[in-house]
Amino acid sequence: MNYFKNKKILILGGVGFIGSNLALRLVEDGAEVTLIDSMIPNHGGNLFNISPIRDLCKVNFSDIRDAHSLRYLVQAQDIIFSLAGQVNHLDSMKDPFTDLEINSLSQINLLEVCRKFNPQVKIVYSSTRQIYGRPQYLPVDEKHPILPVDVNGINKVAGENYYSLYAKVYDMDCVSLRLTNTYGPRQYIRGATQGFIGVFLRLALQGQPITIFGDGLQRRDFNYVDDVVEALCLAASTPEVSGGVFNLGHHHSYSLLDFIQLLQKSCDFDYKIEPFPPERAKIDIGDYYSDYSLFKRKTGWAPVVDLEEGLLKTVAYFRDNLAQYL
Amino acid sequence: MNYFKNKKILILGGVGFIGSNLALRLVEDGAEVTLIDSMIPNHGGNLFNISPIRDLCKVNFSDIRDAHSLRYLVQAQDIIFSLAGQVNHLDSMKDPFTDLEINSLSQINLLEVCRKFNPQVKIVYSSTRQIYGRPQYLPVDEKHPILPVDVNGINKVAGENYYSLYAKVYDMDCVSLRLTNTYGPRQYIRGATQGFIGVFLRLALQGQPITIFGDGLQRRDFNYVDDVVEALCLAASTPEVSGGVFNLGHHHSYSLLDFIQLLQKSCDFDYKIEPFPPERAKIDIGDYYSDYSLFKRKTGWAPVVDLEEGLLKTVAYFRDNLAQYL
Repeated sequence: MNYFKNKKILILGGVGFIGSNLALRLVEDGAEVTLIDSMIPNHGGNLFNISPIRDLCKVNFSDIRDAHSLRYLVQAQDIIFSLAGQVNHLDSMKDPFTDLEINSLSQINLLEVCRKFNPQVKIVYSSTRQIYGRPQYLPVDEKHPILPVDVNGINKVAGENYYSLYAKVYDMDCVSLRLTNTYGPRQYIRGATQGFIGVFLRLALQGQPITIFGDGLQRRDFNYVDDVVEALCLAASTPEVSGGVFNLGHHHSYSLLDFIQLLQKSCDFDYKIEPFPPERAKIDIGDYYSDYSLFKRKTGWAPVVDLEEGLLKTVAYFRDNLAQYL
Repeated sequence: MNYFKNKKILILGGVGFIGSNLALRLVEDGAEVTLIDSMIPNHGGNLFNISPIRDLCKVNFSDIRDAHSLRYLVQAQDIIFSLAGQVNHLDSMKDPFTDLEINSLSQINLLEVCRKFNPQVKIVYSSTRQIYGRPQYLPVDEKHPILPVDVNGINKVAGENYYSLYAKVYDMDCVSLRLTNTYGPRQYIRGATQGFIGVFLRLALQGQPITIFGDGLQRRDFNYVDDVVEALCLAASTPEVSGGVFNLGHHHSYSLLDFIQLLQKSCDFDYKIEPFPPERAKIDIGDYYSDYSLFKRKTGWAPVVDLEEGLLKTVAYFRDNLAQYL
């Protein structure tokens, strides 16, 4: 697929986990790639992520809350991947204002500057399964009620809604993908701000004990980052998805215990199971896995990496580069 | 009902349409009432609204986007009615940032200062049927998908979600009512910023021709403001509704043509029917009327004023005080 050759592409959050993996792919495909990253500590930006392409793309350090710089950056781009966000649920409860600025206000920033200065641009937005809240049925499809259980979820709902609205009202070419738990090389593993997978990976790689909250039987679906990158690329290159909102997901779900035990195949560590601390219990969502058949029908996408294989690849990457991620 | 006697009550948006009608009722019930209003032009604040109680309540001119003043105002209150908002749909599209500040950010402002400085306070929030968007079935109940069709709707969704979240996660005593089209004395009729009823009323009172967009057959349910005030009071005084979200509405729906023809019983004017202008067509929602049986079951509330009677009362009020509203 040579769809991206010579295309001008802007990636918001481009030095972070998913953004950098996407950037590597697009540079390989011959695109002219510009990355925007605010490099806010603990948000995932890590220059090592893009070391293989550091001289093959542009990097612009700026914050998407700043509409003035965005105004210049969006012009003349063919495709924008809007992946920058605050993703930590507990942080969103402690500081709801910052979460709102990044996840809601900044999305209007982007849409408004595109509407005024580049209305033809294609925009792919990374939404999240978090907006469904606690599932009322499984697997969760796109018709499931939107019932966010934390400030982060509420603000991501607003963010996604803006994209759908601008597509409808202004005929802009936007599509949103609702990502589930994504893992893989270049993931943020230093602290607890980016979800449990990063925490588990770091502890496993360092041979330290892992604590699972709950009973360990909570099910999740996991997408390896290469599969998510492929989905983002298909969302950008498939006209039929324009204006839509689609789940990603995986046809195999696993319990957290399964996840830990698969990780033990390549890492030597112990684990224990403990009840939820109160602040986590209130925003826990139980089991989650999604139905991604709508996106599959439109684009042919399905994840090709299963959890066992993906974890082996992920552990191998981090073993080779661990110092860059601690 | 003497529930409100000597209660300390704060009304955000207290000099506006619904806020002032509520204030009159609560002062009559013997409450200690404080009104907050930003008096932003064209948002509905009109000091004439509260002239009968000007010396019987406190008025604090401030903007709910200012968390510092809110912090002092919420302390020692028993009940807060959170009615301040930006309600204009077209303005929200022209200036999405201001709409977000008022309808999303400010609601977090209020919830955060209450959580920190008055966590026991009862909060009644006025949400809107606008968040349902274009109805997928009628009458619309609370299980209907949330599909806002404009920036205002998106930001109101976030606002309402914050109240539900803070009720759940912090055990705060919040309840949201989703208001439908409300009309009555003290309504803003000066311009087009507060919905079609105000526009129609002003034109009818001045004997000027009214233009209906669409075919005139779009159905709506209309609540007279006294019925809405009663609902707000019941929401505040009924413990069983705490944490919930409830529709208001009316068991009789009317077409816009019905509305106009009822208005012609007390006002002398002509009307014509025209196609939607493009910017309105894209955010038009077709027919809307709601199922308010959930709130009725919990509180016994049902509207007692039908449209014909309500319009007669409204026209009578404005005929006596028209100069104060033009």
